[in-house]
Amino acid sequence: MTIQNDGYFTEENSADVVAARNADAKDARLRDSVNILVRHIHAAIKEIEPTQEEWFETVMFLTRTGHMCDDWRQEFILLSDVMGVSMLVDAINNRKPSGASESTVLGPFHVADAPELPMGTNICLDGKGEPMLVRGRILDIDGNPIDGTKIDVWQANDEGFYDVQQKGIQPDFNLRGVFRTGADGVYSFRAVKPKFYPIPDDGPVGQLLGKLGRHPYRPAHFHYILEADGFESLTTHIFDPDDPYIHSDSVFGVKASLMAKFDLIEDPAAIAEAGFDGPFYLVEHDFVLARP
Amino acid sequence: MTIQNDGYFTEENSADVVAARNADAKDARLRDSVNILVRHIHAAIKEIEPTQEEWFETVMFLTRTGHMCDDWRQEFILLSDVMGVSMLVDAINNRKPSGASESTVLGPFHVADAPELPMGTNICLDGKGEPMLVRGRILDIDGNPIDGTKIDVWQANDEGFYDVQQKGIQPDFNLRGVFRTGADGVYSFRAVKPKFYPIPDDGPVGQLLGKLGRHPYRPAHFHYILEADGFESLTTHIFDPDDPYIHSDSVFGVKASLMAKFDLIEDPAAIAEAGFDGPFYLVEHDFVLARP
Repeated sequence: MTIQNDGYFTEENSADVVAARNADAKDARLRDSVNILVRHIHAAIKEIEPTQEEWFETVMFLTRTGHMCDDWRQEFILLSDVMGVSMLVDAINNRKPSGASESTVLGPFHVADAPELPMGTNICLDGKGEPMLVRGRILDIDGNPIDGTKIDVWQANDEGFYDVQQKGIQPDFNLRGVFRTGADGVYSFRAVKPKFYPIPDDGPVGQLLGKLGRHPYRPAHFHYILEADGFESLTTHIFDPDDPYIHSDSVFGVKASLMAKFDLIEDPAAIAEAGFDGPFYLVEHDFVLARP
Repeated sequence: MTIQNDGYFTEENSADVVAARNADAKDARLRDSVNILVRHIHAAIKEIEPTQEEWFETVMFLTRTGHMCDDWRQEFILLSDVMGVSMLVDAINNRKPSGASESTVLGPFHVADAPELPMGTNICLDGKGEPMLVRGRILDIDGNPIDGTKIDVWQANDEGFYDVQQKGIQPDFNLRGVFRTGADGVYSFRAVKPKFYPIPDDGPVGQLLGKLGRHPYRPAHFHYILEADGFESLTTHIFDPDDPYIHSDSVFGVKASLMAKFDLIEDPAAIAEAGFDGPFYLVEHDFVLARP
């Protein structure tokens, strides 16, 4: 242990004094990351000039946020989400070349072992909600179809809940499935039109959103993870551009390129061809995967 | 509820998009503080470029820190302390005119109802430790004594524990007392020479300190709160400049102006005059209070 002989702490040199104290860290990445965070947080504090009471309120907010976390609830991830931190980390880790489809946040409701299904399967297992057909192609950046792309999809039901949030109410693996493209790169599945839903807002993060004049809703979307040999995997959503919350997603997940029109199809011939027994929503969206 | 029609989130405009979303907050101070924090934390993230795994490790660190907090342990205050945040907030809230004594952190061990005692009382109730006499004057910025200053002092024992940490082992109110100056501004009390001690380091913050190559020790000190009519109150410590951790206080509380020499007095006449029965440490330190 070294006793560092650095200068004493002052308002002016505060972040430098802390960084000097971390000089003996064995993990250079940890040291640099902590020092950068300290420098920016000290700068924020100098700009805010919090009172002692405001500092203590912040301590207690973080404490309540920690106490809200358990095996089923991650309030710090919610905090990260509503402050745009999760999306920023996602953006930094998923810079794509021009023309490739963009990523967005994974979210907490993916499950690893959803069943692999024949293309075109209806993943709505309880028949509830407005029928929807989703189809499109998986392409490379030159427009060629990608053979053998694994497509993992999941979504909330039309009441805004994922199956894992309603065990015993929804069937297991409701509105989830894994599909694999052939040489034509085409995918399709049937499901139900998703609906906006709130992130969990009964904790400290929900209270903060309320004080900031914000609602907790995410616009209607469904999730994809696309994986193909020789390409970067893509974790993303597609969104309904007509959703009332499309411009105010509580977790900032929306990107202009991730919109897909939800067209209501009422033509009897089209209904029959798609295998529905009444009007349905058609969503057509292609994805472009980037090479590493 | 307004649905803001701001732009979608990108890596470049991330903090502006979050700030636009907070535009409807009723509490302007909260809104501005959150927006400043978001801007600086996003800037830190852009500089660090954390992986998804590093982001998740940070979430889990904050979660463990929250879970460590209870009625007796405040791990987020420890985190604030070891990152220099507590001292920075203290510095911002206690800017003093030139010539006035400087503040430092309150710490978690002050109690509000310590007994008021006659000047010169020995506040060491269990006779353990090396005897110490502390004395000095409370002055205004022009060097005039301040009549009626309330002096609240407390310290750890020579094993590094405060009475409230060792209920049933140390007597109640051991090494605490409140004194009040007369017209001469003079104060004095007897106690024991304090020793360095670690902040609680058996939790996530202690583990982080270890990874940063840092020890958990605070150099020997004792605490003062000084209050006098017509003056700003002063919360501060005085430190032993010969302490092995004087240049590496784990919470950055040391300031050059807060040092006081701990002189070992062995002269029999001086020992008799001070009312000790053997050698003792003499600490002489004046404080200067600022007017508001």
